Amino acid sequence: MRIVSADTGGAVLDENYNPIGLIATAAVLVEKPYRTATLSIVKYSNPFDYDLSGRTALKDEALLGLKLARKVKPDVIHLDSSLGGIEVRKLDDPTIDALRISDRGKAIWHELSKDLQPLAKRFWEETGIEILAIGKESVAVRIAELYAGIYSVKWGIEYAMKEGFVRIGLPRYMTVEITENKIVGKSLDPREGGLYGEIPIEKIDTDWEIYPNPVARMFMVFEAKI
Amino acid sequence: MRIVSADTGGAVLDENYNPIGLIATAAVLVEKPYRTATLSIVKYSNPFDYDLSGRTALKDEALLGLKLARKVKPDVIHLDSSLGGIEVRKLDDPTIDALRISDRGKAIWHELSKDLQPLAKRFWEETGIEILAIGKESVAVRIAELYAGIYSVKWGIEYAMKEGFVRIGLPRYMTVEITENKIVGKSLDPREGGLYGEIPIEKIDTDWEIYPNPVARMFMVFEAKI
Amino acid sequence: MRIVSADTGGAVLDENYNPIGLIATAAVLVEKPYRTATLSIVKYSNPFDYDLSGRTALKDEALLGLKLARKVKPDVIHLDSSLGGIEVRKLDDPTIDALRISDRGKAIWHELSKDLQPLAKRFWEETGIEILAIGKESVAVRIAELYAGIYSVKWGIEYAMKEGFVRIGLPRYMTVEITENKIVGKSLDPREGGLYGEIPIEKIDTDWEIYPNPVARMFMVFEAKI
Repeated sequence: MRIVSADTGGAVLDENYNPIGLIATAAVLVEKPYRTATLSIVKYSNPFDYDLSGRTALKDEALLGLKLARKVKPDVIHLDSSLGGIEVRKLDDPTIDALRISDRGKAIWHELSKDLQPLAKRFWEETGIEILAIGKESVAVRIAELYAGIYSVKWGIEYAMKEGFVRIGLPRYMTVEITENKIVGKSLDPREGGLYGEIPIEKIDTDWEIYPNPVARMFMVFEAKI
Repeated sequence: MRIVSADTGGAVLDENYNPIGLIATAAVLVEKPYRTATLSIVKYSNPFDYDLSGRTALKDEALLGLKLARKVKPDVIHLDSSLGGIEVRKLDDPTIDALRISDRGKAIWHELSKDLQPLAKRFWEETGIEILAIGKESVAVRIAELYAGIYSVKWGIEYAMKEGFVRIGLPRYMTVEITENKIVGKSLDPREGGLYGEIPIEKIDTDWEIYPNPVARMFMVFEAKI
Repeated sequence: MRIVSADTGGAVLDENYNPIGLIATAAVLVEKPYRTATLSIVKYSNPFDYDLSGRTALKDEALLGLKLARKVKPDVIHLDSSLGGIEVRKLDDPTIDALRISDRGKAIWHELSKDLQPLAKRFWEETGIEILAIGKESVAVRIAELYAGIYSVKWGIEYAMKEGFVRIGLPRYMTVEITENKIVGKSLDPREGGLYGEIPIEKIDTDWEIYPNPVARMFMVFEAKI
């Protein structure tokens, strides 16, 4: 099974470890044995001008996932929304009302589906590829999350080299290592069976460290400074 | 404390990684220090003719647990149903109605208790051994789950040697290793404190691999082919 | 950020692994990189005369946290109550009623706040230091929990040297190691990013072992005997 997925993550943190804005949306192609991505692309946001209360993330993820899917023709696209794996093209208003999710979740999807449902329907008609709202059940969604973290670190290193310092909150229970020529991100949850990702980088000359976010248990902080 | 427990697990998967039917019910004797079983027995189902919507698993588990318990005389029997450790012999209809569980859970137990309650009562009267509905709180239940996975892999190897190929979904966050003369199954959750199991096998000549189930995060897939 | 936190844990267990009473309340100072404590103090309870149904733990924790905070002047105090990080000095009755917690949780806090709210208010007026009800989100609370477990083991060793035997239930998914001159406690959850604690001890001559609590999955038992 060849799966395309996308997820958003990595946040610039203030000095109290609260998120200011999200950094990266990553789309990945995940193939057997499903432990990492065979291809990844990224779209950066401006974390200093980001509406954390908004719902732009899932739409951005769908669009970036579609972009990668047009290129690699996967069997299926997985979105990070835990609706039990339902096809997004089928998410009309009565179907959303019938979902076993919170009223708030329904309100969000009534809004989201205005854009995403026709998009998914058209893409399916053209290609036969389904877009599923599968969320946390999907290993591909988790791998996309790891890549969002890895790309956030890459962005952070470049930011620190210009501005002198950066403090980033990584996605849930993941850590990163920086070697001579790549950034490796690894899940800290062994129950996931060894999920990881890596992207190439130029040799860097910033100091960096990883440590637990004191006010968000199971989330790590990445700091870099020159 | 000497505990007998039983659990069902391991599923033949189709090419989309969806379960077709369950493979093995294992009963185990667990003794201090409670990290593995000192004795185990198995009852195989036919995964290609299995009613996944049915409730036969818990009844099978109770019967297999009783079979082992008659032999080894444990202090207690643990069943995989999370009712807070209540004695199954006390599960009459008013008691079930008073449980803090979902209406669906109550309906299932009203049905199940018709068989299990008299069985548990008689066994307790004869032996003084209680059958508890303790579920996920019990380390013995988890070890039984690991053994169900290990026996499923044993079944899978034999199936693959006859049929050429098998794809099995293991119980939650566990993995297996096959050595010259045994199958070892290990919990992937270090919080459980190192739970594992092993059973002897003949030397095998199939290729096998383990990888994450892409549509069921935290579950591993075992594949074997000749 | 310099954080003081406090937590209670470690329980004497009976022969069926049920808790008799809690052993230790630990207060810790946690500083960057937030993986362990730079300072810790302990207050022992009498586990053989302990009201497990009572709510004395949180009050004890607040008082011990304040004691340490007066000495080390942290930026903030974290209590083990998951109210989303609200300031305890603001917990008057209307605010408690407006919290999104269970009715039982509200009843407990209506009672608790009679003592804790004026205490927190006065401390904040004197020092500017907030006491937050942050609970499981806080790494500092988790480190305090690890120290409560470590101090419980220290108490247990001394108890076993006098009485011959002790059986202690440690806080959730943590383990301990005893070396020549210290007790080291470690989180068993790698998602937390390597949290641990240690306290010095005299050389001991008791036998000890750690194993999973068979009736409380993810909790370890510490036993010592001479």
